[in-house]
Amino acid sequence: MLSKSQISFIKSLHQKKYRKEHGLFLVEGLKSIQEFIHSSYQIHSIFYNSEQSNLLPKLPANINLFEVKNVELEKISTLQTPQGFLALIYLPKNKKINHKALKNQFTLVLDGVQDPGNMGTIIRTADWFGFNKIICSEDTVEAFNPKTVQATMGSLARIDVYYENLNSFLAQSNLPVFGALLDGESIYKTNWGNEGLVILGNEGKGISEEIIKKINKPITIPRVGEAESLNVAVSAAIFCSELVRVKN
Amino acid sequence: MLSKSQISFIKSLHQKKYRKEHGLFLVEGLKSIQEFIHSSYQIHSIFYNSEQSNLLPKLPANINLFEVKNVELEKISTLQTPQGFLALIYLPKNKKINHKALKNQFTLVLDGVQDPGNMGTIIRTADWFGFNKIICSEDTVEAFNPKTVQATMGSLARIDVYYENLNSFLAQSNLPVFGALLDGESIYKTNWGNEGLVILGNEGKGISEEIIKKINKPITIPRVGEAESLNVAVSAAIFCSELVRVKN
Repeated sequence: MLSKSQISFIKSLHQKKYRKEHGLFLVEGLKSIQEFIHSSYQIHSIFYNSEQSNLLPKLPANINLFEVKNVELEKISTLQTPQGFLALIYLPKNKKINHKALKNQFTLVLDGVQDPGNMGTIIRTADWFGFNKIICSEDTVEAFNPKTVQATMGSLARIDVYYENLNSFLAQSNLPVFGALLDGESIYKTNWGNEGLVILGNEGKGISEEIIKKINKPITIPRVGEAESLNVAVSAAIFCSELVRVKN
Repeated sequence: MLSKSQISFIKSLHQKKYRKEHGLFLVEGLKSIQEFIHSSYQIHSIFYNSEQSNLLPKLPANINLFEVKNVELEKISTLQTPQGFLALIYLPKNKKINHKALKNQFTLVLDGVQDPGNMGTIIRTADWFGFNKIICSEDTVEAFNPKTVQATMGSLARIDVYYENLNSFLAQSNLPVFGALLDGESIYKTNWGNEGLVILGNEGKGISEEIIKKINKPITIPRVGEAESLNVAVSAAIFCSELVRVKN
């Protein structure tokens, strides 16, 4: 049985402000939670539906376990239909990017992506294609937003997401800077070399003007039909796929 | 000023049952509505925020126009923040697919895609890459679901979506049947030929067993990292992109 104050504490973590204050975020669903258990993340506690206790795996002793009723899970869940398991997990320490760690590989850079679902899908897609870092502008949606976490399907446990002032970050980098723009070279004909940053912009406004100036290789996904633009998670996926294709 | 019965009529169209009964669906946002005006769709009526009446384009005389207050738009809109313009548009007549019209091209076939956002993104992506038809199993989410319409960003006006019993449809087709599966040939090494159907499955369950049997060319997007799967709209996008790449 959860106390009122426990419920209101967990519900506060639905909001970014309190996630930051308490250093915790929510992950729902046993499968996703297991990905975090088998990662470098530290688990604070797990709340599980008493009717599904048989599914609970063996867990390290330092994880607080709470058996709760489904009606209680409904109160603390961010989902319309709770998935039986909800974990509180410690936010990772703010990491600064190490420029050397970006050598000899390609890394996605997100400039102002706003939609949590898009962000989550980008993280999941990056994980599929073997990318392990994503660099974001400071105004990009938080990777620990519950909707983002949900859309990553557990991939967030494996991908390091860095939030940086993109201007200074790009100034300090000497990697080639590719950018998804409407008037660049065809993505299918690009000579990628063996390392670089690939910038994708905001859903409505694209890449910000200041950042566009830093792009030395504008790249376009050629349009054959008439849609005005592509969804940013779709663009990111096509970039990841092309990068994997040309390397193989 | 909208009457109570007008409001409840329009709100009923948020639901599939009443869309079917009344033969109408909703499109919101001026940009999207304009795509439908310039298409073969017939517009029933447009409701617009009085404060944005200056944005209203010249319209054919047979379209009913209603100037309304924003509070009224909020009542009839499917969005949290209405976009100033809401149109009722006639559903197209149920079309049956013409097998000959599928020759010498590639067509996406969706088997049980459930998420309206994914469906909308697939339609938008198909439009970008110049595909003009999508064939869906009967249990695939409705293309005229408001969330789907929204996610297509107007592309629905240009893409014909057919709902078919996939079993009989595939039995009558003699096109090569490609399918997105986890254990197929690499998508980057596939010999596509110049025509075919490309089947993508449900978000959780993939392609149904019965339909898998009809696939003669299983195709895989190679996994380099560790994510368990890709989002279906992302997979569809990578298939579209590859098909465009190899043709050029």
